[in-house]
Amino acid sequence: MFQVIGERINTSRKKVQAAVVARDVKYIQEDVRSQQEAGAHFIDVNGGARIGHEQEDMQWLLETIAPVVTVPICLDSPDPTILEMAYTLVKEQPMVNSISLEKERFEVMMPFLKGKKCKIVALCMDDSGMPGSSTDILNRAEQLVTALVGIGMKLDDIYLDPLIQPISTDSGKGTMVLDAVRQIKKQFPEVHITGGLSNISYGLPERKIINRTFVTLMMAAGMDSAIIDPLDEKIMATIKTADMLNGKDIFCMNYLKGVRTGVIKS
Amino acid sequence: MFQVIGERINTSRKKVQAAVVARDVKYIQEDVRSQQEAGAHFIDVNGGARIGHEQEDMQWLLETIAPVVTVPICLDSPDPTILEMAYTLVKEQPMVNSISLEKERFEVMMPFLKGKKCKIVALCMDDSGMPGSSTDILNRAEQLVTALVGIGMKLDDIYLDPLIQPISTDSGKGTMVLDAVRQIKKQFPEVHITGGLSNISYGLPERKIINRTFVTLMMAAGMDSAIIDPLDEKIMATIKTADMLNGKDIFCMNYLKGVRTGVIKS
Repeated sequence: MFQVIGERINTSRKKVQAAVVARDVKYIQEDVRSQQEAGAHFIDVNGGARIGHEQEDMQWLLETIAPVVTVPICLDSPDPTILEMAYTLVKEQPMVNSISLEKERFEVMMPFLKGKKCKIVALCMDDSGMPGSSTDILNRAEQLVTALVGIGMKLDDIYLDPLIQPISTDSGKGTMVLDAVRQIKKQFPEVHITGGLSNISYGLPERKIINRTFVTLMMAAGMDSAIIDPLDEKIMATIKTADMLNGKDIFCMNYLKGVRTGVIKS
Repeated sequence: MFQVIGERINTSRKKVQAAVVARDVKYIQEDVRSQQEAGAHFIDVNGGARIGHEQEDMQWLLETIAPVVTVPICLDSPDPTILEMAYTLVKEQPMVNSISLEKERFEVMMPFLKGKKCKIVALCMDDSGMPGSSTDILNRAEQLVTALVGIGMKLDDIYLDPLIQPISTDSGKGTMVLDAVRQIKKQFPEVHITGGLSNISYGLPERKIINRTFVTLMMAAGMDSAIIDPLDEKIMATIKTADMLNGKDIFCMNYLKGVRTGVIKS
């Protein structure tokens, strides 16, 4: 089944930042509960938007979430010091977001990850910038997988993000990433594919139909996870429907539940 | 670009049958115009619902449509006598719907098709009934392609219908046809894949989200045509969006036109 990483607990969101500043426990806990009810398999926690406050904000967020969270947390920070602290505050094996091939990040993240039990989001980004072809994405994916397996990580714990780019800048940006995902899944069937989706529609009107049509195409190519807002009912409806059509919903149980709860509508 | 076969001119639809009985030229012409405006690449014409009247109804429909039609017609009948008559009434090279491997139909359709200039919808159906596996679909596709190429038809004029079956009866019915389409397109890249979509959602609630999510998955697998109602704006919006994401809409022109005309909405 497709794994949803709920993206809402992020201090770059105005309401979340206000709640963090006001130490509004109820707001944050309610948000986590609603993401879980909507089907989030991970709760991403990012406390990085208030410069100079990431340490305290991340700590407060994790302590606030602890009593209500029933799924693994995705610790979202580029800073290994923050991640080390955060790692000690979660009970269940977390996901860590993220490592990349950018030299600075790679060199601090590899020692952090070595020996830890966690899942890892690995971005196909290096110091030359965004990938320019499907081969480029595949090469970066191979480098990341090789490095992570080399320090003892399991393939099943690796969530590659191929970095979706705007179709408005180049009409080949969709097929580029779709081809790359097919190739990665062929080479590493156990590795997961995840990522944010909304970049695909950047610069175009009516973005949500683009995002949900694209997630369907990406699921056909082998994407099995995404970092999204689980309270966006239309994209969740599309994901549940595509899961069913891809043979991952025996007796259509999840689909029918989605219809019953009003999430799935024609 | 994805090719839409507009399905509305069919006497099994109540309003169309009433218009045919009343010889209501305006109704039929308006319907054809609206399908063309909505993006139909073919207009399917089926006059078979009034038993004993197919000959006259088909003839009247084709004569009525002739002054307004700007795209090829898809002559839809199982009866070669009707098709022979109909074939003489259309100017542009038509599509014919359909041949299958069912002995009776195959044996009368092959002589009809031999030497004619037309496109053909070929159903992966034989006398044992609906296909039971992706291999089964592929085998039937091979038989149809071999036979049609054998009488001089071009691969590009063949539109295989793999026969979509309800996911409600078996959660593997989606992947079965998706796998088959991928295999057919691998073996015969020039052959088109078409078909009705709505069978996939038979027996389930909120059918339209299933149909449009499935067409997206089928497009990812290689489907490049479907027999649908072009006035269904949501499925047309999905098809235009998926075409763009599959790299078939340079500068997003068709997508942006769809937004401007109000067909594509989030």
